[in-house]
Amino acid sequence: MTSADRTIEDAATDDAAVGDALAASTSDASLARTIARSAQIETEIDQDPSKFRVLTGDRPTGNLHLGHYFGTLRSRVLLQQRGVETFILIADYQVITDRDGVGPIRERVYSVLADYLAAGLDPEQTTIFTHSSVPALNQLMLPFLSLVTDSELRRNPTVKAEFEATSGRPMSGLLLTYPVHQAADILFCKANIVPVGKDQVPHLEQARLIARRFEERYGRADAGQPVFPAPDALLSEVTNLLGTDGTKMSKSKGNTIELGMDADTTAKILKKAVTDADRNITFDPVNRPEVSNLVLLAAMSSGRDPQEIAAQIGDGGGGTLKKVVTEAVNEHFAPIRARRAELAADQGYLESVLARGNARANEIADATLDEVRTAMQMTY
Amino acid sequence: MTSADRTIEDAATDDAAVGDALAASTSDASLARTIARSAQIETEIDQDPSKFRVLTGDRPTGNLHLGHYFGTLRSRVLLQQRGVETFILIADYQVITDRDGVGPIRERVYSVLADYLAAGLDPEQTTIFTHSSVPALNQLMLPFLSLVTDSELRRNPTVKAEFEATSGRPMSGLLLTYPVHQAADILFCKANIVPVGKDQVPHLEQARLIARRFEERYGRADAGQPVFPAPDALLSEVTNLLGTDGTKMSKSKGNTIELGMDADTTAKILKKAVTDADRNITFDPVNRPEVSNLVLLAAMSSGRDPQEIAAQIGDGGGGTLKKVVTEAVNEHFAPIRARRAELAADQGYLESVLARGNARANEIADATLDEVRTAMQMTY
Repeated sequence: MTSADRTIEDAATDDAAVGDALAASTSDASLARTIARSAQIETEIDQDPSKFRVLTGDRPTGNLHLGHYFGTLRSRVLLQQRGVETFILIADYQVITDRDGVGPIRERVYSVLADYLAAGLDPEQTTIFTHSSVPALNQLMLPFLSLVTDSELRRNPTVKAEFEATSGRPMSGLLLTYPVHQAADILFCKANIVPVGKDQVPHLEQARLIARRFEERYGRADAGQPVFPAPDALLSEVTNLLGTDGTKMSKSKGNTIELGMDADTTAKILKKAVTDADRNITFDPVNRPEVSNLVLLAAMSSGRDPQEIAAQIGDGGGGTLKKVVTEAVNEHFAPIRARRAELAADQGYLESVLARGNARANEIADATLDEVRTAMQMTY
Repeated sequence: MTSADRTIEDAATDDAAVGDALAASTSDASLARTIARSAQIETEIDQDPSKFRVLTGDRPTGNLHLGHYFGTLRSRVLLQQRGVETFILIADYQVITDRDGVGPIRERVYSVLADYLAAGLDPEQTTIFTHSSVPALNQLMLPFLSLVTDSELRRNPTVKAEFEATSGRPMSGLLLTYPVHQAADILFCKANIVPVGKDQVPHLEQARLIARRFEERYGRADAGQPVFPAPDALLSEVTNLLGTDGTKMSKSKGNTIELGMDADTTAKILKKAVTDADRNITFDPVNRPEVSNLVLLAAMSSGRDPQEIAAQIGDGGGGTLKKVVTEAVNEHFAPIRARRAELAADQGYLESVLARGNARANEIADATLDEVRTAMQMTY
């Protein structure tokens, strides 16, 4: 921890300063610190991956698409391959923070699980679990809620942003307390790394504050170490893949390619992709977002350089570009899709994977809750 | 009730400190309905007590005193004797809604438990359990938080009054969400009666609302019945016993007699009780609160009429009154105190009672959580 970190953290113990601390966690200075710390963590992972435990996850609100794959899923597989123990939360309770129903939640959970496994996550190395299946994790909400103030919750930038995105829908108690259950998700397994985008930094700051305040207010179970280590952010490089129409990916716009789609469906969607009138294909994201996005997708799928792909297509126009990107995507995802189809056909196996993940998450959550009870002297 | 009172009232064992302020915030119409329904429930209990399950409890912030005994404890024993199954929550997590530490929580929990058993609660008929020991109960917080809005939490009269009573201390997330965990406490065991004072009616309204919204939004586990029956309030007659100085009971004022005190200590406290200059003893609570309170205590302890006791003392003055009330209290509590001393000396027995209560509460909470998961389709 740098001295600059301590200054922010110390100021944060003062209730009045906490909102500022949280707001400041998205400031440039804080971001620079997080970037520096992320680079350091990358080095330390190479030296000794066993020092780290990662917590990450998804809201199961739909099927995963190529944006998820290139945005987070692939990097989770890489972390696993580097030997970092990973916990992946399928955050089913987060589905109801801002909507009335759960939707076809069971199907979506198993679909996401199939996506994970098809993409290369190995249930022997990575614990995949559902939020609603781990009572001891959820119980942490109560002591943690005692460690945050109403106004901190209200001023949390992510809660504010989520609320503003719901266009006037009254904020639910679950959305308001979202930073606290996210802290419980991270801290129950004592994760010390959380891969995040820039917008998630305030949540992580809240989890760090809760870990520290728990120590200050309730003490320890074991004199030698705090119950909760303060987690670090691992800032992920943003790939910024857009939908096939050059706008933000959104299932309702039909501009996404899901992991579970077959080659023909992929080809059809890419055939309708938006390009522009200039037949000379270049990689120029600022001025030619639609074309460049397709080039980028081809590059990511093939592991090649986007400039090189664009140069190779040259005057081939949108038609050639679409052919190139379709081939690249279908080639890269062919084995993943084959594996996904096998998995989707074997519901019993998916259930056994989730059951094992949940059993392991419960075992760890129970042990952590025992420590919490010991620290709080609530042992009867 | 002023906020200064609340500060002094730090060791109060329940929410009585905000009682007066809350009485005003409950609508007359709602109160009239609750009173009528309470009378009906009393009749139905006599006809068939097996139709009912009661949930009630205390915050373990200090030892129980005669105010608790005559206020709630004795009526719990009566309900038990009438054959109503009762769940009693020792609400350890509620201790930290508005204070920084847990205090000597373990000692207080066992002290309250000894008070319960000494007063006549039978662990074979009544389930006594601690909040922090029942993870599936606590998990209900998450789905329930999705059913209330931020502004409902903020407008809850009990939360508002509690907050106003904390003299500017920032409101914790745990206090803000208090109505939701109280709903979880009531609904996890599907209690259909909750004995309350007028001040607790808004909380019960919140629990009824959550039960109804759960049904509307997430449906049922079993088509034949809702997961959560809407609980009814059983309005308790307020005895309004004051401290020995004629003011509100408060441990820090030294004006309470604890259940666990011996006869000599009781005599000493009553010897210092405040009376007035008029040697003629009358029962006149409005004009002579201190004297009348002592008469009332003698009446409650002996089961006699306060007017009759006052008339019998006549011109005997404060000295005779104190003698009469001391004898009445010590006689009534002698067997309870003897039993309490035995219990306090048998920590192993107390632990076994709480362990059994917690095991039963967990069994019921697990079954309810399973139904919640089924209704929400979160079964994996």
